[in-house]
Amino acid sequence: MKGGSIEVGEVSKDASPRKGVARGLSIMDFILRIIAAVATLGSALAMGTTNETLPFATQFIKFRAEFDDLPSLVFFVMANAVVCGYLVLSLMISVFHILRSTAVKSRILLVALDTVMLSLVTASASAATSIVYIAHNGNTGANWFAICQQYNNFCERISGSLIGSYIAVALFIILIMLSLVAISRN
Amino acid sequence: MKGGSIEVGEVSKDASPRKGVARGLSIMDFILRIIAAVATLGSALAMGTTNETLPFATQFIKFRAEFDDLPSLVFFVMANAVVCGYLVLSLMISVFHILRSTAVKSRILLVALDTVMLSLVTASASAATSIVYIAHNGNTGANWFAICQQYNNFCERISGSLIGSYIAVALFIILIMLSLVAISRN
Repeated sequence: MKGGSIEVGEVSKDASPRKGVARGLSIMDFILRIIAAVATLGSALAMGTTNETLPFATQFIKFRAEFDDLPSLVFFVMANAVVCGYLVLSLMISVFHILRSTAVKSRILLVALDTVMLSLVTASASAATSIVYIAHNGNTGANWFAICQQYNNFCERISGSLIGSYIAVALFIILIMLSLVAISRN
Repeated sequence: MKGGSIEVGEVSKDASPRKGVARGLSIMDFILRIIAAVATLGSALAMGTTNETLPFATQFIKFRAEFDDLPSLVFFVMANAVVCGYLVLSLMISVFHILRSTAVKSRILLVALDTVMLSLVTASASAATSIVYIAHNGNTGANWFAICQQYNNFCERISGSLIGSYIAVALFIILIMLSLVAISRN
C-alpha cells in the first residue's frame, strides 16, 4: 500500500471532500479505461478479420484483398491488441486508486505508462489512416490507384475500424488529464 | 509565482539536495526542449523543401515530384512546425522551473501540454512513415508502384526528414518522464 505514508502524513482540514473528489476521478478513470479497452479490442478485431474476394477471377489471379497485404494495417492490429491488453491490466491499478484515493506515486507511474501507450495507439491509428486515405482517393502524382473502387466492402471495413482507435486516443488524453488533476489535488 | 506557497509550506530536513536535483532536472528539461525544437524544425524544413524534377519530359507531362503531392507529408510538415513553435514557447516555462525548482502545478500543466504535442508529432511521423514505406516498396496487392525507383533523391530526402520527428517523439517521452520524476520528488 504505497499510498499509506502519504495518507497518514497529510493532515488537512478539508480532507473528506477532497477524498470524495479523488475517488470520483478514480471511478471515472476506471469506466473510461473499460470503454477504451472495448474500443481498441473492437478496432483490432474489425481490422484483423477483414478480407474480400471479388466474385470473378482469371486463370492465374484470384482477386482477393486481405488486411495483411498492407503492413500498416498489420501494425494497426498488433498495436491495438497490445494497448487493449495494457488497458485491461491497468484496471487493477485503477481499482487500487478507487480504494486508496490519495495515492500519488502509483498515479504518476500510471501517467508514464499511459503516455507510452498513447503514442503507440496514435502511431497505429495515424499509419492506418494514411493508408486508408490512399486506398480511398489514390494519388495521381504517384500513380497509385484508389483500390476502393473495386474492393468496396474491404474499404468500408478498414475505414470503420479506425474509429475505435481514435476513440482510444481521445480517452487516453482524457485519462492522463484526469490523473494529473488527481495528482495536483493531493 | 505559483511555486511560492508550496516552497514556503514545505519544511523538509533535506530541502537543499532535493532542490538541487529538481534544478538539475529542470536544466536537463530546458536542454532537451532545445534539441527537440531543432529536430522538428529540421524535419519540417527538410520535408517542406523536397521536390525533384526528372531530367526528361513528354509533350504533356513533366515528371516532377513534390512533397505536397502527398497529403500525409503536408500534414507532417504542418505538425512539425506547430510542435517546434510549441517547444520554443515552452522554453519560458522551462526557465521558470529552473528558477523555481519546487513548482508543481506548472509542471503538471506542462505534462498535459507535452502529452497533446507528443500525440501530434507521433501521428505526423507515423502517417509520413507509412507513405514513405509504400513509396520505397510499393504494394503488389494494391498495385501501387514503388515511386522511389524513379524519384531517387526525392525518396532519400523524405526518408531522412523522418529522423528528426522520431527524435522529437523520443525526447517528448523523456521530457514527460523527467517532469513526472520532478513532480513525484516535490
